[in-house]
Amino acid sequence: MLRLPLRALALVLPVVSLLCFTSALSAEDGYELWLRYAPVTAAILRGNYLASVTGVRVEGTSETLRAAEYELKHGLAGLLGQALPPAGETLRDGLVIAGTKAGSPLVSGLGLDAELARAGDEGYVLRAMPVRGHRAIVIAANSDVGVLYGAFALLERIATNQRLDALSVVSAPRLRYRLLDHWDNLNRTIERGYAGFSLWDWQKLPDYLDPRYRDYARANASIGINGSVITSVNANATSLTAPWLAKAAALAKVFRPYGIRVYLTARFSAPIEIGGLKTADPLDPEVAAWWKRKVDEIYRFIPDFGGFLVKANSEGQPGPQDYKRSHADGANVLADALAPHGGIVMWRAFVYSNEAPDDRARQAYNEFKPLDGAFRKNVMVQVKNGPIDFQPREPFHPLFGAMPKTPLMMEFQITQEYLGFATHLVYLAPLFEEALEADTWAKGKGSTVAKVIEGGVDPYALTGMAGVSNIGTDRNWCGSVFACANWYAFGRLAWDPELGSDAIADAWIRQTFTSAPAFVEPVKKMMLGSREAAVDYMTPLGLHHQMARNHHYGPGPWVSGGPRADWTSPYYHRADKNGIGFDRSATGSNAVGQYFPEVAARFGSLDKVPEEYLLWFHHVPWDHRMRSGRTLWDELLMRYQAGVDAVRRMQATWAGLSGFVDPERYEQVRAFLAIQEQEARWWRDACVLYFQTFSGRPVPPGYEKPEHDLEYYEKLDHRYAPGI
Amino acid sequence: MLRLPLRALALVLPVVSLLCFTSALSAEDGYELWLRYAPVTAAILRGNYLASVTGVRVEGTSETLRAAEYELKHGLAGLLGQALPPAGETLRDGLVIAGTKAGSPLVSGLGLDAELARAGDEGYVLRAMPVRGHRAIVIAANSDVGVLYGAFALLERIATNQRLDALSVVSAPRLRYRLLDHWDNLNRTIERGYAGFSLWDWQKLPDYLDPRYRDYARANASIGINGSVITSVNANATSLTAPWLAKAAALAKVFRPYGIRVYLTARFSAPIEIGGLKTADPLDPEVAAWWKRKVDEIYRFIPDFGGFLVKANSEGQPGPQDYKRSHADGANVLADALAPHGGIVMWRAFVYSNEAPDDRARQAYNEFKPLDGAFRKNVMVQVKNGPIDFQPREPFHPLFGAMPKTPLMMEFQITQEYLGFATHLVYLAPLFEEALEADTWAKGKGSTVAKVIEGGVDPYALTGMAGVSNIGTDRNWCGSVFACANWYAFGRLAWDPELGSDAIADAWIRQTFTSAPAFVEPVKKMMLGSREAAVDYMTPLGLHHQMARNHHYGPGPWVSGGPRADWTSPYYHRADKNGIGFDRSATGSNAVGQYFPEVAARFGSLDKVPEEYLLWFHHVPWDHRMRSGRTLWDELLMRYQAGVDAVRRMQATWAGLSGFVDPERYEQVRAFLAIQEQEARWWRDACVLYFQTFSGRPVPPGYEKPEHDLEYYEKLDHRYAPGI
Repeated sequence: MLRLPLRALALVLPVVSLLCFTSALSAEDGYELWLRYAPVTAAILRGNYLASVTGVRVEGTSETLRAAEYELKHGLAGLLGQALPPAGETLRDGLVIAGTKAGSPLVSGLGLDAELARAGDEGYVLRAMPVRGHRAIVIAANSDVGVLYGAFALLERIATNQRLDALSVVSAPRLRYRLLDHWDNLNRTIERGYAGFSLWDWQKLPDYLDPRYRDYARANASIGINGSVITSVNANATSLTAPWLAKAAALAKVFRPYGIRVYLTARFSAPIEIGGLKTADPLDPEVAAWWKRKVDEIYRFIPDFGGFLVKANSEGQPGPQDYKRSHADGANVLADALAPHGGIVMWRAFVYSNEAPDDRARQAYNEFKPLDGAFRKNVMVQVKNGPIDFQPREPFHPLFGAMPKTPLMMEFQITQEYLGFATHLVYLAPLFEEALEADTWAKGKGSTVAKVIEGGVDPYALTGMAGVSNIGTDRNWCGSVFACANWYAFGRLAWDPELGSDAIADAWIRQTFTSAPAFVEPVKKMMLGSREAAVDYMTPLGLHHQMARNHHYGPGPWVSGGPRADWTSPYYHRADKNGIGFDRSATGSNAVGQYFPEVAARFGSLDKVPEEYLLWFHHVPWDHRMRSGRTLWDELLMRYQAGVDAVRRMQATWAGLSGFVDPERYEQVRAFLAIQEQEARWWRDACVLYFQTFSGRPVPPGYEKPEHDLEYYEKLDHRYAPGI
Repeated sequence: MLRLPLRALALVLPVVSLLCFTSALSAEDGYELWLRYAPVTAAILRGNYLASVTGVRVEGTSETLRAAEYELKHGLAGLLGQALPPAGETLRDGLVIAGTKAGSPLVSGLGLDAELARAGDEGYVLRAMPVRGHRAIVIAANSDVGVLYGAFALLERIATNQRLDALSVVSAPRLRYRLLDHWDNLNRTIERGYAGFSLWDWQKLPDYLDPRYRDYARANASIGINGSVITSVNANATSLTAPWLAKAAALAKVFRPYGIRVYLTARFSAPIEIGGLKTADPLDPEVAAWWKRKVDEIYRFIPDFGGFLVKANSEGQPGPQDYKRSHADGANVLADALAPHGGIVMWRAFVYSNEAPDDRARQAYNEFKPLDGAFRKNVMVQVKNGPIDFQPREPFHPLFGAMPKTPLMMEFQITQEYLGFATHLVYLAPLFEEALEADTWAKGKGSTVAKVIEGGVDPYALTGMAGVSNIGTDRNWCGSVFACANWYAFGRLAWDPELGSDAIADAWIRQTFTSAPAFVEPVKKMMLGSREAAVDYMTPLGLHHQMARNHHYGPGPWVSGGPRADWTSPYYHRADKNGIGFDRSATGSNAVGQYFPEVAARFGSLDKVPEEYLLWFHHVPWDHRMRSGRTLWDELLMRYQAGVDAVRRMQATWAGLSGFVDPERYEQVRAFLAIQEQEARWWRDACVLYFQTFSGRPVPPGYEKPEHDLEYYEKLDHRYAPGI
């Protein structure tokens, strides 16, 4: 829908018929994300806000503080339905007063020292309190970016319809590095991108700064994200050449006021490819000198450059092992170059070798555990939540808790590579939460993964969480309205890994749509159940990596052959006429042996293993009796069907909510749920027909008949599926 | 800038401070194109419109008529600054009454039969006239789409501030097929696309219809475009398989109400690739039968499918010559399959062979001229405006006028492959106009190219014009605000090839920005001079094809080697120590001999040839005395400098206009002009330094010193430039 410009409205205000005229044109396209600042509609609450907030006074003039002021003024004007008069020089009741202890005598005189001490470098204090005899809402922090975070927090409170009367909050991030990883290529394609193409319009950089870059930074700052790795982990050395550094620097300049640092991926062979050296051996002094010069050059372009993310000796990428050096040797040569500037290395633990015949689930641990303590102080090892690769469900990665001397950074995937792409509504906070809550038992009960990455189990000097971005050029940023909830949830959990999925969904729904309980509650229920639905219709009971080859779009349990055994489905499902599942128990690959004993005992026992991990850890006979009393075969089919049924319930829920949502977003969600239902059936039918060739067991009565035969599903060809 | 939703405003109308609040947020991003429907600001004129137009009455209920009604109601509400009350059942003064003769007794009773006869199938009559005693504005047509075109025409009249009192217009398109050719690949990359990626989100089709598809159709209908070739000329047979036809059909359904038919490109080897045949020989009965079945299948998906565009035996594409058959044989097998359904074939004349040693400029004529009369009735041969390939300037293609028995369709390139991509402001209407006005002398003086394609020189049963689209996912559609003027101009010229660049620019500026004369006049001047500026800084005096290899971004006069001689620059410039230029005179390749004698005599003579084509047709000594009195060398340098100077004048013009434009669009144009100035210097310096290695002549005093040496320019590597 082409929108009439807002400017047009300014000229037609006197006209009586305006109301119906504007409402007919109020198309929403999702661009505003959770920053819609839609007017508070509940009259009592709006009255309360109007009384509480009469103006904005930001103490200071830095770019970050001006960003905070912009956000407060425009956000409040939207939420309250009216622009606020200028704050002026003298205090009055109802001002929002924002500033830092160091930058504002007014703020430093408020007696908030204890609270500010708890807020730390990046946190904030929000407090309704008298200031020199006037009612005020104070946003205080130790840094300008803390003020900005506080401003967003205040706006969120209003947008989610919380009262401000007794406002008293101190919030500080539990992790220092809260990063989005963009797998964006220099030609703007995105590996595993389902929301169009890369936001970075390299051709027009550094000369033209798309206004969208700033909105990207605003959205990230609003959820506490403080870094962006703008290039793909399958790195291209060209991105480290001067013309491209100038482009990265232009983005860094836009992001800087929002507290977001730019990071780059470093291709390990760059010294050869763009440096003209004969080797990239990390112990070669020329190589070390080259990296030092290159890093110095980067800091001339980007004085607050964050550092490097590196994928090395993984899936064909070059790395230190090409020279018989260790991952620590590789990371350290980069770390030494970055250290004088305060930059860090994030070295990915996602490595596996086809030559080594060991279970792929064991390989990262095998490689990295022996290197504990061998990394420089400014290195973090970045570990995926599970030991394989961002599956709908995985047990937590055994490295968590196993490297007491090496800071481990969590890597989640926000983009839905294995979760139906953008058209499947899968709210990922429960997946993230499940991983973070998992107990490693590293130092006894309560040694959760969250505590490990926070440095609460072993004291880590660095802490962090990375999310593989789902952002692209699509107008709604993430390819679908609901996929944006995953970006939001990631940011929230990176700030506080112990937050709950429910509270995050609640806040996102209210800001993105409405606070009407008749909408919030059913939508929240739908979101909270959606990840389990996807597990059920794709890979129930611990199955994993059953997706089609390369693009991973749709089912491919039959996928075999090709360059690597562990890129095939049978490697993971191991179905035969006796049963199904990967024996990783002590009598199998013994992947369970990489966990601490309490965990190993539970996962390794067919009796004790949680059924959601059953086929991850065990090869189980088709007639194995499940806790439900059903056989494994019947239970498996029941799960596939349950996944389809759950999507149908989501459709029914959404169908009842059209009155609460603008037609554009309503229709997009409706259409995508229809695709999801269709594809859930595709998954169910393709997998059941395929596994039936092994089990030889009948489909229980009442089960929906597959639409096509197995051959039909095997022949489907989606070669232009996005993301590769 | 995240925008506040319009809906928010509805709630804040009573608030006094609203005006400044909204104006601060009125970001424009170019999405609205020339359909902004911004309020008419001149008070007298607005009063006139408000008196003339009091309501909309569309007679009929077809989807097309509802589209016309939607456009009129929303467009008029925007332009007049107020929604119009419903028209009701009884007539009153000031109604816009729209309908067809067949569908509306009211319209058929108005005595407009003579005008309607002139309007033809797709045209319209616009008339201010009394209807049953009431003042009315009538939009009458013989078809629903004629009504839609008339509705857009009325809205344009108001948006460009023309009075309606004596409105009396009859307009009919001079060409029947007015098509955009999208060179869009199935993975959404666009060959020669500089505005992001393909609008067609294949992965989500056919299930989800992005609202943007409809806005695409609206924009096209508003300028009379009635067809869209949605796939690339470098065709992929997959697009003819059932799943992809379903996707194309979904687009066709959105476009249909707007009078836009979907066309596809046909890969000539499809019978082998997706049909399982052993051959694609057009004379093989199995091949003919396969195409017939395939076309029948397409029409089951898309009942009003338009037909095929084919690039065959060109740049490596398969074609009939692979089987020693002619282009006519190839076109006719497809034409026979399409004929029963009313579909057409557009067979491209853009063919050249590396084996044939003839001048590339001669090859299309050599191939096609002998085939005149050999094509079926539903075939058009689609000919580029010039004999090489969409250069900044080319003489007209010698095929125009040379095929009296074969309808020739014009192919223009709207996307700026050879014209600086999206960041160079180059208004292309003067290029199009120059080609259309060129006199072929086929039937004596006045046998212009426009007349040829209109069927006015030789009677053609089919007429048409195609434009290679510059549209992509960029929010502003074409990569830059001004590039949209080229889409607009193409549509206008396809409707009436004899329109002038000036009038088209005038209407576009007023609708896209404002009608303020202090803005319209300087911007029009800037646009009208911009193409000549680009010719000057890129390829003055008839030079051509001097762009960098493959991506064509920036200068590459030194580009040599590679697979084909005619993909190198020296093939075209032929510079040596004696002079520069391609001798195509009678003593050279005799390309001039393909033109009618009057033209051949002019182009073939060093004395008579227009200097803008000098080096296209002649190899000229460096010291050749130009009409200015300067030597060729000095003139060449003067031209390069003039191009740079012209861009600087454009910058100065724009700098003075910030008060007329919203900050977002102003800043984008400013930034792009800065890029253009920088790249104009790059072109000038790289070319002058390079040609100087042949001429050995000094740079005249006062000429700007190049920033770098030739080696620097030769080493520039832009491997990720878009569009390939």
